[in-house]
Amino acid sequence: MKTEILYGIHPVFEALSARRRNIYEIYFQKENKSDRLARLASLAEHNGIRVKNIRSGEFKTLVRGPGHQGVAAKVDLYPLKAVSDILAAAEAKGAPHFLILLDSVLDPQNLGAIIRSALCAGIDGVIMPKDRSAPITPAVSKASAGALEHIYLSRVTNLVQTIQHCKNSGIWVMGLDKDAEQSVYDGDMTGSIAIVLGGEQKGIRPLVKKNCDFLVSIPQLGAVDSLNASVAAAVTMYEALRQRQKG
Amino acid sequence: MKTEILYGIHPVFEALSARRRNIYEIYFQKENKSDRLARLASLAEHNGIRVKNIRSGEFKTLVRGPGHQGVAAKVDLYPLKAVSDILAAAEAKGAPHFLILLDSVLDPQNLGAIIRSALCAGIDGVIMPKDRSAPITPAVSKASAGALEHIYLSRVTNLVQTIQHCKNSGIWVMGLDKDAEQSVYDGDMTGSIAIVLGGEQKGIRPLVKKNCDFLVSIPQLGAVDSLNASVAAAVTMYEALRQRQKG
Repeated sequence: MKTEILYGIHPVFEALSARRRNIYEIYFQKENKSDRLARLASLAEHNGIRVKNIRSGEFKTLVRGPGHQGVAAKVDLYPLKAVSDILAAAEAKGAPHFLILLDSVLDPQNLGAIIRSALCAGIDGVIMPKDRSAPITPAVSKASAGALEHIYLSRVTNLVQTIQHCKNSGIWVMGLDKDAEQSVYDGDMTGSIAIVLGGEQKGIRPLVKKNCDFLVSIPQLGAVDSLNASVAAAVTMYEALRQRQKG
Repeated sequence: MKTEILYGIHPVFEALSARRRNIYEIYFQKENKSDRLARLASLAEHNGIRVKNIRSGEFKTLVRGPGHQGVAAKVDLYPLKAVSDILAAAEAKGAPHFLILLDSVLDPQNLGAIIRSALCAGIDGVIMPKDRSAPITPAVSKASAGALEHIYLSRVTNLVQTIQHCKNSGIWVMGLDKDAEQSVYDGDMTGSIAIVLGGEQKGIRPLVKKNCDFLVSIPQLGAVDSLNASVAAAVTMYEALRQRQKG
């Protein structure tokens, strides 16, 4: 099994808590003493995971770039799910499906932020195409504050085929499109739903858009017509959650 | 009048569009040719603003750090508003007040993101304390995608006094607190409202919290209980907008 180096307090803590991928070793930066790191080290030892204290110089060759907060872990590659697994797990919950499909989300920061909000909003799974998407790296786990370690995520060859598959399974497919006339607040998201979200620049691709059952937009009142992509995603998922929790 | 250097395409464009602060000169990086920069240059000249093309080296001494996208502008310091101006402008609209009060938002990125969403959601004004807040710098304008240039923003000495002032003016003060039992979806935000949002780490301070009329929380369903502060702000402001647009 291939491994990678996860870094940052949240990703390492959540990987340890979710236990969805093997953790082979956790590395602490010797010079960095904090209560949070000490708690993490004792949790790791309690779980029988080898802990190594290493010097700054060695740590820097292990983790490039900022944001490591003095901790890293050697782990298996991210455990992707099949779409069928996501649907089966959702069915086992006995509630209507609640999925998001990400089209052309290229920025790892945005992807991480969306995954973080998706986990909080109770999304069953995130589905994204293999191409035209940010790769699932430790940077995404970091940007998601570790939420990636818990969420179910699938990468598919053809997003339009997945949309068809959703429709055939009785799931309504709703696209978020800034030019849509219908407001997100008038879109019915109480049943089984897959929300399709576009990327930073151009939104949903035309063929993907065409295959949605309906399109909605978020009202924008200000002089600047530019809600951030991950904020738009959160507003839409939380509006769905509101509708689903109501009554 | 003191000046500062604004940078990035959105901040410079929106400063030019809002015209709330004087723009003395716009600087373009000579080596950087793009259609967006060319359009911005012609817009500046059309508005009678002096344009200077300068070399990379000189540009770097003007703007430190990344994100300038090859454009900067010498402008007056940010034009803060008095709370009374914000209230008067809101009253002139003839709709119920819609304010946000930010307590302990220390990160300029978060502040910028909140301002961007606030402008999109139609907020009348943002009020924050002078201390324990991120300063209003060009980095905030950049993080807001230029929304800062349009929003009304006030910095006050004492946020609790401002809350009292709001209450005396017939505005309901609603705090977002992750431990509140009432859901944000059950909070009535159809009338005049001031939403109090806390910072990244500890949320609203106890004394500020105590002075709110009521507190609400955003439901969080996942294993990780950690909605990002700017996402929580956007979800709350957009829930208010939904209630206010309804019916």
